[in-house]
Amino acid sequence: AVASPAIAQSAPEIKWRMTSSFPKSLDTIYGGADYFAKQVAEMTDNKFQIQLFAAGEIVPGLQAFDATANNTVEMSHTVSYYYVGKDPTFAIFASVPFGLNARQQNSWLYQGGGNELANEFFKKFGVIGFPCGNTGTQMGGWFRKEIKTVADLSGLKMRIGGIAGQVLQKVGVVPQQLAGGDIYPSLEKGTIDAAEWVGPYDDEKLGFQKVAKYYYYPGFWEGGPTVHAFCNLEKWNTLPKTYQAILTNAAANANTWMAARYDMQNPVALKRLVAGGTQLRPFSNEILDACLKATNELWGEISATNPDFKKTIETMQAYRSDEYLWWQVAEYTYDSFMIRSRTRG
Amino acid sequence: AVASPAIAQSAPEIKWRMTSSFPKSLDTIYGGADYFAKQVAEMTDNKFQIQLFAAGEIVPGLQAFDATANNTVEMSHTVSYYYVGKDPTFAIFASVPFGLNARQQNSWLYQGGGNELANEFFKKFGVIGFPCGNTGTQMGGWFRKEIKTVADLSGLKMRIGGIAGQVLQKVGVVPQQLAGGDIYPSLEKGTIDAAEWVGPYDDEKLGFQKVAKYYYYPGFWEGGPTVHAFCNLEKWNTLPKTYQAILTNAAANANTWMAARYDMQNPVALKRLVAGGTQLRPFSNEILDACLKATNELWGEISATNPDFKKTIETMQAYRSDEYLWWQVAEYTYDSFMIRSRTRG
Repeated sequence: AVASPAIAQSAPEIKWRMTSSFPKSLDTIYGGADYFAKQVAEMTDNKFQIQLFAAGEIVPGLQAFDATANNTVEMSHTVSYYYVGKDPTFAIFASVPFGLNARQQNSWLYQGGGNELANEFFKKFGVIGFPCGNTGTQMGGWFRKEIKTVADLSGLKMRIGGIAGQVLQKVGVVPQQLAGGDIYPSLEKGTIDAAEWVGPYDDEKLGFQKVAKYYYYPGFWEGGPTVHAFCNLEKWNTLPKTYQAILTNAAANANTWMAARYDMQNPVALKRLVAGGTQLRPFSNEILDACLKATNELWGEISATNPDFKKTIETMQAYRSDEYLWWQVAEYTYDSFMIRSRTRG
Repeated sequence: AVASPAIAQSAPEIKWRMTSSFPKSLDTIYGGADYFAKQVAEMTDNKFQIQLFAAGEIVPGLQAFDATANNTVEMSHTVSYYYVGKDPTFAIFASVPFGLNARQQNSWLYQGGGNELANEFFKKFGVIGFPCGNTGTQMGGWFRKEIKTVADLSGLKMRIGGIAGQVLQKVGVVPQQLAGGDIYPSLEKGTIDAAEWVGPYDDEKLGFQKVAKYYYYPGFWEGGPTVHAFCNLEKWNTLPKTYQAILTNAAANANTWMAARYDMQNPVALKRLVAGGTQLRPFSNEILDACLKATNELWGEISATNPDFKKTIETMQAYRSDEYLWWQVAEYTYDSFMIRSRTRG
């Protein structure tokens, strides 16, 4: 393709479209894209307008990246792990089982070479990406009965997708791929035994607490998932430098906005869920240990034939090792004390 | 004062000055302001230029806020707890002992009404503030000898300022106010017994590891301190809406940039320090418990005569209680497992 010429005018009027992978009802994750677009509009006096579309309005939610790659829309707001069918490397820039927590993920992407590695990879698809949201550590999901051991996972039909599903399959789970709207009826009927979604605020909206009693944590496959704003690379290259800077800053702002908003909403929702009878349960160490082992096995299998994945996962793992070395000193001991003394004012 | 008229032109050429509370050598905390100013310049094609000055170039580091209030400079980059001499309420918007961690602090400020409360307060001084950096949980500082009990703190001369100094004084410490450059010689000569600064990356630069063996954690008086960009309110009101939006987005971006950069730098510095012989030590529960008790006493004393402080500390405490209620579920158990299994890949 011949590159479009750069737009010479310094503040041209531009109207772009952005497709979200989410419905409007998920007001925080969908809202992150809305907030992003508003920032761009405000910084340009509405000269650069990015019109946002919910999942399904232009393309289905899980085709948002593709729609950006093929320039159906200039931008998308989605999670790169949805595209592991193309290449499992996609997952690492969002979240993989036992990956980085939200702040470490930002550090890796912004300061540890992660974004550069990501964009080298996304470039193959004609796309450039910007971190534009994070949910924080997610919950492990809703279970109709208690699970205590790895044996309890055997044959368990759980709605969980992508690489997390592959990991859980190794420990006996039968992963089910279901769209958001199909989860509740399946769980109600018992067609599935368990389902993971996001965290208290989003999960409560879908009503899972009415059809499954046990709410497990942590969602070890999503320690701090990054939501990306993706931009068609050729279109990106036509933007004046000022608009490129404006878009970059708006995405960074929206990245923090989403995490801050989930952190405001989740405690309140969690309290309501527990007051309504939801039983919180931690995954047992036996289950976590088995899943970590399964995860490392899977990385070995994928890395054997996929050099991009191998390079990226090893880079992330080295970063993670350093991050948690430091985390266990100041951050973690601080949080430990604060949790222990929470009720003492 | 008569308000300056709003600048009618949509993209006027503006040159402002910003004074930092930090020397250039602290390249991450000073660098946050530099990054901020660069973002503003890039987004406006250099039409809105904010020239940055290090501490002492225009005004001393600890007068940065005042210089903004009285319009000596339009902006400053500083930590609001430096100004507790005017009113202890200033501290709460940056960090107080046993306050919020970095992500919770963002949630409170951006989504929990914290920024609105802050700016209602800063308005009394003719200033508006924007979170523009965070160090993460700091270290507890360098000690020439081990301290295990509260009795060991008795008479200990420690370089620590502000409200943290007042708390430690209640448990026997003799707080010392020393500028950054005076700490090393005082610690070397034994004029002081201990000193706190920031964290591994910044502390290593000042060479404290050469004159004190024990490096304590966590810095419970700075769980996640916010660095602010302050702007003279009257000057702020003259900006076109686009520039206000640009400045706001640049500050939010720089806020994350600084935390991400410290998170990248601290692990590497920590490894060097430990390899060089530094002995890491956690504060004992006895010390942490006594300091929490002293902190709550101090809040009662200040609140008795200062309604702004009372309102703000109670708001922060309520937010903190909810945050850590949620934190202990997904985030903390995730970090716990990751720390425990760090060496297992």
